[in-house]
Amino acid sequence: MKTLITLVIAAMLTTAGPAVAGPDPLPSWTEGPARSRILNFVQTVTQQGGPDYVAPADRIAVFDNDGTLWSEQPAYFQLLFAIDRVKSLAAKHPEWKKKQPFKAVLEGDMKALAASGEKGLLELVIATHVGNTSDEFAVIVKDWLATAKHPKFQRPYTDLVFQPMLELLAYLRAHGFKTYIVSGGGIEFLRVFAEERYGIPPEQVFGSSVKTKYEVRDGNPVIVRLPEVDFIDDKAGKPVGINTFIGKRPIAAFGNSDGDFQMLEWVTSGPGARFGLIVHHDDAAREFAYDRHSAFGRLDRGLDEAPKRGWTLVSMKTDWRRVYPE
Amino acid sequence: MKTLITLVIAAMLTTAGPAVAGPDPLPSWTEGPARSRILNFVQTVTQQGGPDYVAPADRIAVFDNDGTLWSEQPAYFQLLFAIDRVKSLAAKHPEWKKKQPFKAVLEGDMKALAASGEKGLLELVIATHVGNTSDEFAVIVKDWLATAKHPKFQRPYTDLVFQPMLELLAYLRAHGFKTYIVSGGGIEFLRVFAEERYGIPPEQVFGSSVKTKYEVRDGNPVIVRLPEVDFIDDKAGKPVGINTFIGKRPIAAFGNSDGDFQMLEWVTSGPGARFGLIVHHDDAAREFAYDRHSAFGRLDRGLDEAPKRGWTLVSMKTDWRRVYPE
Repeated sequence: MKTLITLVIAAMLTTAGPAVAGPDPLPSWTEGPARSRILNFVQTVTQQGGPDYVAPADRIAVFDNDGTLWSEQPAYFQLLFAIDRVKSLAAKHPEWKKKQPFKAVLEGDMKALAASGEKGLLELVIATHVGNTSDEFAVIVKDWLATAKHPKFQRPYTDLVFQPMLELLAYLRAHGFKTYIVSGGGIEFLRVFAEERYGIPPEQVFGSSVKTKYEVRDGNPVIVRLPEVDFIDDKAGKPVGINTFIGKRPIAAFGNSDGDFQMLEWVTSGPGARFGLIVHHDDAAREFAYDRHSAFGRLDRGLDEAPKRGWTLVSMKTDWRRVYPE
Repeated sequence: MKTLITLVIAAMLTTAGPAVAGPDPLPSWTEGPARSRILNFVQTVTQQGGPDYVAPADRIAVFDNDGTLWSEQPAYFQLLFAIDRVKSLAAKHPEWKKKQPFKAVLEGDMKALAASGEKGLLELVIATHVGNTSDEFAVIVKDWLATAKHPKFQRPYTDLVFQPMLELLAYLRAHGFKTYIVSGGGIEFLRVFAEERYGIPPEQVFGSSVKTKYEVRDGNPVIVRLPEVDFIDDKAGKPVGINTFIGKRPIAAFGNSDGDFQMLEWVTSGPGARFGLIVHHDDAAREFAYDRHSAFGRLDRGLDEAPKRGWTLVSMKTDWRRVYPE
């Protein structure tokens, strides 16, 4: 009996190769090279006894979030959250009326905000994201996600996740992959919605962070968020974060901007079969079209080097039948 | 057929309560309150429909390493590794002959070494653990673990893991728990042996760390270990580390020293059924006897507060039939 059960379970867990009938796992991907490459890679690494077989424990796939799993225009959604926070906290901070980058936010002057540069944006994030506990912050983010609407699409931000990527995540997991988010965005911001929206639990979500401290308040322990950057999980920080949080080199990486370049490089230069993919935002009609000159999600070096590094470049316009879920 | 298989699998995954026959999952634990409390807790949180049922995704258990999963006397094993490294690197560092704490190590003067305090020990660790890549460091640790012998037991350090705790780890995992290491020791040191020895994969092992950077050397990307502390995963750092790495509050915590106090406090003050356990080293014959006055693994506040906080105090002498594996 035990042997029978073992065989049944083994059969259930075994890779469905292209020969096996079943519903299309990637219905939102058009028939084309991107889709074929994904299917081939998964078949290659899951084929028992094959030369490039990878044990389930090492089937680790890492995904950028902004621009890869959901949209990032007209600005990173977390920045739009920070802007809304500035507005709602402004009454308590009269000094912001005269101080950049807060003044720019309150006056709706996006040009002046952009001119404040990375330093200004960081200041904005620090001022609007800390001074609370982790639990309190999660509630603030949750409330915002439940009520705020995207300026162009007039839909909640969590509606603006990419349907083809949701299918890809599910497809990889069905083949024994562990899926991670490796984002330049805030770790505690992402964890609020990643499990429900992407099926990725908190312990597989990481990103940039502020320092925190442990404190017991009236006998009640809390984690307090401090006004100091702890880690920036972007560019060369991504492989560093992967090494710290996962401790193994993943075999597949998915990104969309030059902020993902080093992650793609790190992942795809390992031995054995590797997979790198870049989502190219070339769809002004259904989403946005931008690459080399965008303030958010700039893709320049990656666009040049993808072909010679063997990375799959996905055209949102032609490779995806649909962008967002219904 | 599918329903039958589903039922069979469900039956296999369902908790074995005390009524279900089977081999004893904790053969190295004597019949006593510690063992009963462990069994009761697991039964309570895995009982479908029970008032304290916890879904598998939230069955997270965190374990300290030094003194909880393996021995830590006459000094933390990683410190003994650092001492061996000083000796093997001494020829390249003639200045160490005159400089503390290196001089103390080279002269075997443990008193002077202890007198160098935390600062001295940190200096020792930094000098002996960095300047290499993560991959190179892993090889150095692996070689040391394969050859070095414990001064008292004359056995490899990885033999000195606690058999009762190995059984406990396996028992928890068999009941849907995800087991983590949350150690004051070095994250990249621990990951070298944690999977093989404890069945805990790298992504569930975390600890203290040095800063690292990503670098491409002759086209080959590497993670370089830098001479700067990144994070100390001890005392109030443990809940902070748990929040960063796991993003959820675990429901069970296992430690042995005051370095684990805040972790135990954080875990056991959450809502619902919670479990905290402290291993008390009171067995001079089979291992070591120490608590309030030990330089390594000092247990003072925890010893006083365990009863009133409902934490289980394990006597190595009476609760464990056996300390080490055969």
